[in-house]
Amino acid sequence: MTYELYYWPGIQGRGEFVRLALEQAGAPYVDVARERGPGRGVAAMTKMLKGGGGALAPFAPPFLKDGEIVVSHAANILAYLAPRLGLAPPGEALRLFAHGLQLTVTDFVAEIHDTHHPISTELYYEDQKKEAKARATAFLDHRLPKYLGYFERALQSNADGAGHPVGAALTYVDLSLFQLAEGLSYAFPNAMAKFAAKYPGLAALHDSVKARPKIAAYLASARRLAFNEDGIFRHYPELDGKAK
Amino acid sequence: MTYELYYWPGIQGRGEFVRLALEQAGAPYVDVARERGPGRGVAAMTKMLKGGGGALAPFAPPFLKDGEIVVSHAANILAYLAPRLGLAPPGEALRLFAHGLQLTVTDFVAEIHDTHHPISTELYYEDQKKEAKARATAFLDHRLPKYLGYFERALQSNADGAGHPVGAALTYVDLSLFQLAEGLSYAFPNAMAKFAAKYPGLAALHDSVKARPKIAAYLASARRLAFNEDGIFRHYPELDGKAK
Repeated sequence: MTYELYYWPGIQGRGEFVRLALEQAGAPYVDVARERGPGRGVAAMTKMLKGGGGALAPFAPPFLKDGEIVVSHAANILAYLAPRLGLAPPGEALRLFAHGLQLTVTDFVAEIHDTHHPISTELYYEDQKKEAKARATAFLDHRLPKYLGYFERALQSNADGAGHPVGAALTYVDLSLFQLAEGLSYAFPNAMAKFAAKYPGLAALHDSVKARPKIAAYLASARRLAFNEDGIFRHYPELDGKAK
Repeated sequence: MTYELYYWPGIQGRGEFVRLALEQAGAPYVDVARERGPGRGVAAMTKMLKGGGGALAPFAPPFLKDGEIVVSHAANILAYLAPRLGLAPPGEALRLFAHGLQLTVTDFVAEIHDTHHPISTELYYEDQKKEAKARATAFLDHRLPKYLGYFERALQSNADGAGHPVGAALTYVDLSLFQLAEGLSYAFPNAMAKFAAKYPGLAALHDSVKARPKIAAYLASARRLAFNEDGIFRHYPELDGKAK
């Protein structure tokens, strides 16, 4: 069965956390809104959002269609896919913890987004630049170290497996932490300059994920979109901070 | 087995979505941080957050301890509890949809919080009032109708059961939608004045949940904290809008 992933074309965004899991597993999938033809493209995604796929319409992309099953929200999709893709930790306790970690990633991503849109998603960044600078400063001073410190502790205190945040082997959470490091380094290169020194576990995890054959092939392919200033992780030099 | 719920004492906050499910089910639970004695109080919660409960430390409250299992994030806790409390819809497809709805509630709650803290949680509301007014205005104009409209459509298009957002009977999502209506009416009484006319399904759901014997008893008890200006839903008259 080919999975159908629905997400905005043109940005990595929240869909990228799902793409990385599908790519690492070598799972067959269609990135529906990026394709052309019948049942493809943004129109097909919009139709699903309006209830055209049945009563269980998602609120927003990303969502995944697997036959008759529709799953929305990146963390929900990943919890659904993980056991099917061999990317879940064993046992209920660790799966619940992995989902909790991913929901913490979700919260972090929302805060990263709001550094450039603190007032309204209806306004351009240029219309909320002053407030964005204030929010980005508070984010880099307080929230970034809080979240990264938490993930680093999860890595360091994991008795099951050195180098993984949960369990003894690779899970989807490893892939999401890689993506966070990638995106934050793109958005805030100065503030992230000491990332490897401050968060050695996360930096090593990032490097090991990046070197995996399936991930390396994906990153080198046209399927991996470049970061840009329409996505979650945006590089606005004026929002960057100093290395700490 | 008595469930242990860990959440900040003194506010309803994100913990309230879990409390409502436990109360509706009549499940035995301890609200740990609100109790005194050994293993109780905020100190016990802080200890768990610092990893004192084992390696699987949560990022933030709320979290639930059920024997050796620790579950963090309200939506994760509710997905875990629902089948145990008789508050889950039947079948995988509906459970995934219910979790998607609850994660939409999660996103909505974060946006509601940010109406009074658009710049930083490290600052007081008084230090970001101007930005809060701008964010609250955009929220009431765009985000509130988008979220409430979505939940209303989920209610109206549910082929399984009139009056429920998912499945043919009460689930934890019903309870969360009740809480959203309560909290928004407290925070934004003017902007919510036409709630029942615009969202008749949500208003009827709110009233039916409120009239349930277990919920009514809970709301009348000392266990139900009052809304206040330390929580997610805060009533600052200057942030309220006009009825639309």
